[in-house]
Amino acid sequence: MTLLKKAKDNIITKEMKHVAKTENQDPEYIRKCIAAGTIIIPKNKSRNTTPTGIGEGLTTKINSNIGTSQDCENYEEELKKLQISIKYGADAIMDLSTGNDTDRLRRLIIQKSHIPLGTVPIYSSAVQSKDITNMTKDNLFDAIKTHAKDGTDFVTVHCGVTLKVLETLKNHPRTTGIVSRGGSMLAKWMTYHKKENPLYEYYDELLELARKHDTTLSLGDGLRPGSIADSTDKSQIQELIILADLAKKAYEQDVQVMIEGPGHIPLHEIETNIKLQKALCNNAPFYVLGPIVTDIAPGYDHITSAIGGAIAAASGADFLCYVTPSEHLALPQAEDVKQGIIAAKIAAHAGDIAKGIKGATERDNAMSQARKNLDWKKQQSLALDPTAFKKYRIDTDHETCTMCGKYCAIKK
Amino acid sequence: MTLLKKAKDNIITKEMKHVAKTENQDPEYIRKCIAAGTIIIPKNKSRNTTPTGIGEGLTTKINSNIGTSQDCENYEEELKKLQISIKYGADAIMDLSTGNDTDRLRRLIIQKSHIPLGTVPIYSSAVQSKDITNMTKDNLFDAIKTHAKDGTDFVTVHCGVTLKVLETLKNHPRTTGIVSRGGSMLAKWMTYHKKENPLYEYYDELLELARKHDTTLSLGDGLRPGSIADSTDKSQIQELIILADLAKKAYEQDVQVMIEGPGHIPLHEIETNIKLQKALCNNAPFYVLGPIVTDIAPGYDHITSAIGGAIAAASGADFLCYVTPSEHLALPQAEDVKQGIIAAKIAAHAGDIAKGIKGATERDNAMSQARKNLDWKKQQSLALDPTAFKKYRIDTDHETCTMCGKYCAIKK
Repeated sequence: MTLLKKAKDNIITKEMKHVAKTENQDPEYIRKCIAAGTIIIPKNKSRNTTPTGIGEGLTTKINSNIGTSQDCENYEEELKKLQISIKYGADAIMDLSTGNDTDRLRRLIIQKSHIPLGTVPIYSSAVQSKDITNMTKDNLFDAIKTHAKDGTDFVTVHCGVTLKVLETLKNHPRTTGIVSRGGSMLAKWMTYHKKENPLYEYYDELLELARKHDTTLSLGDGLRPGSIADSTDKSQIQELIILADLAKKAYEQDVQVMIEGPGHIPLHEIETNIKLQKALCNNAPFYVLGPIVTDIAPGYDHITSAIGGAIAAASGADFLCYVTPSEHLALPQAEDVKQGIIAAKIAAHAGDIAKGIKGATERDNAMSQARKNLDWKKQQSLALDPTAFKKYRIDTDHETCTMCGKYCAIKK
Repeated sequence: MTLLKKAKDNIITKEMKHVAKTENQDPEYIRKCIAAGTIIIPKNKSRNTTPTGIGEGLTTKINSNIGTSQDCENYEEELKKLQISIKYGADAIMDLSTGNDTDRLRRLIIQKSHIPLGTVPIYSSAVQSKDITNMTKDNLFDAIKTHAKDGTDFVTVHCGVTLKVLETLKNHPRTTGIVSRGGSMLAKWMTYHKKENPLYEYYDELLELARKHDTTLSLGDGLRPGSIADSTDKSQIQELIILADLAKKAYEQDVQVMIEGPGHIPLHEIETNIKLQKALCNNAPFYVLGPIVTDIAPGYDHITSAIGGAIAAASGADFLCYVTPSEHLALPQAEDVKQGIIAAKIAAHAGDIAKGIKGATERDNAMSQARKNLDWKKQQSLALDPTAFKKYRIDTDHETCTMCGKYCAIKK
């Protein structure tokens, strides 16, 4: 029995109780929302993951992407990124490894951490197949099976990249086409073989597999816009409609599901994107990448995405995938991971205040009280990053700071 | 004749033509908006400032604060910050010096730059008076006169900190009280002397002075909230009502005027704050500090304010005062100034895209086209900070980047 099935059967599990306690909510509220598909707790049945709720009425969660690439396959470095992610408050981790051994990091993460783990199994089949066109439907499903069996809590599956969606894309060309790595792999395969996306065609098999391991499906947005110019276009929305259908099927088959979303979106279209997803997908949890609100700031995309992420969270997005300063340019280094996490935490928290999440302003109020009292130690302990605080607050003996000194407005 | 008077008299000046050209607008549109008080071009009549338009339908401008303090009085360092501010695209500079010689930096900035300069004259009187309670009305007005005579393009004057507003504050206590430096000086003076704010009581004299030098008034928000808890409270709005009255008087007396705004504001209250200012102040330009959307991220307040600033700009704010990572902790270093500028530029630009400013997406579109073409040189030239781009893009010979390598979604 999956967690969703239990919720539907009116069973309050220990995971639900745990989430209820963490979120300062009633366990029955958590159960009810899981049963309605508006909250998920991604947790593979074989893994001892810390139960983490994502969805309606809960604090906005953030995800950190790590993983090797063909150009950088350094496991020590990736584990360092894992530790930094946990230290600075990532609620989930995704292993996006595309290095030669795609199994290794995933298994290390499972050994060494307890936060929910997500993966993109098609990367494993892509690496194994050398050229994606060599991949068979079985290769792809075997990869998903392996990931699920290992204990992966949620898998990104780009089931919505269908022939129909590719037709829409062809008829409505874009500036940056497909920028989703998994989405582009499937599109290439489908175009080469002139066949439907196996994740769509054999979706029932996929559900069977997910149900068996109680792995949550994260329905990937292969058509997410890769530029402001492509935002909220027909291909993106066409795919979303399909994802909404697939989410409904997963829900009916007792498989927990969330929807992935954009991407590059101008500020004034973010709320619409969130409300649209909620309306189409029966309020299933929404997991957004960014959104990035301008294309012109490579090197600072943790900031462009903090802007978009905060507005998305305030509008109802449930889960933010961080973006690091190295986005669009290189695989992130450990310091980039830290910067990405902090920016995403700020965005999620700003969104939570706006959403009116219970207790969201408590830490802000304590910080402001400490500021009023010129209690610098207390301020440091309440800061999202006490290390950064310390870096600036070098004159630790002064009652005031070097900006205002004796003209400090707060000093009596 | 002030610029505003000329606009009212249907005269299109060379400053208006310059702004029209820069903004890709019709000169008559600029004149009309200046005449209506919805656009200003802060420019002291004695100074050769590059004409910079702030207001309705124009790109959102950003300001960089520099200046000495009692703890840090290093003129070379401040001039370095000035150069960095100009290099990374500040549209205006404010000298907030509170070091012992408050005249020196202002005069150096006037010598060495051509972007509009703003100051807060009360800081000069505070430094001269040793204790603010020793200040006389004449001291304060002499300081304003000196700043205006030197060529200051706009002065922040906290005219709205009236006895009535202090009464409101007393009746509705706040977590962080008054956090505006100038506001707190005036409040201390008024409380000690049991007298009305001289900037309010002798506002007509102030207007006379401003008109003489064609110095724009920036009506300071001495009651801006210093914490999420104090946001949009009675004291803040009481002051705004008074500022709206004073702005009307300035406008009637042919003195250009803008309104300063918050501060610490939760995300969901930002739009309301902007719309309220516009409604009360007859659409006078709005100059906001931040807003900062959470109190818990000292060391990262360039990010918390980029979130708030982007939403403010999208909602109609015209001018963003940058916030650096060292805000709340220390006088910023040159690198902090750079980070503050870049974050504010991102916020302003994201707002401009949302506001539908003519041509705002052109650079985004060019960047996205360069991305599609894997044209890294072009991308670098279009980046807000080409140096940061270069820092991440170390593998300059590769067709793709180290994140996706051969799995690059964009590569054909």
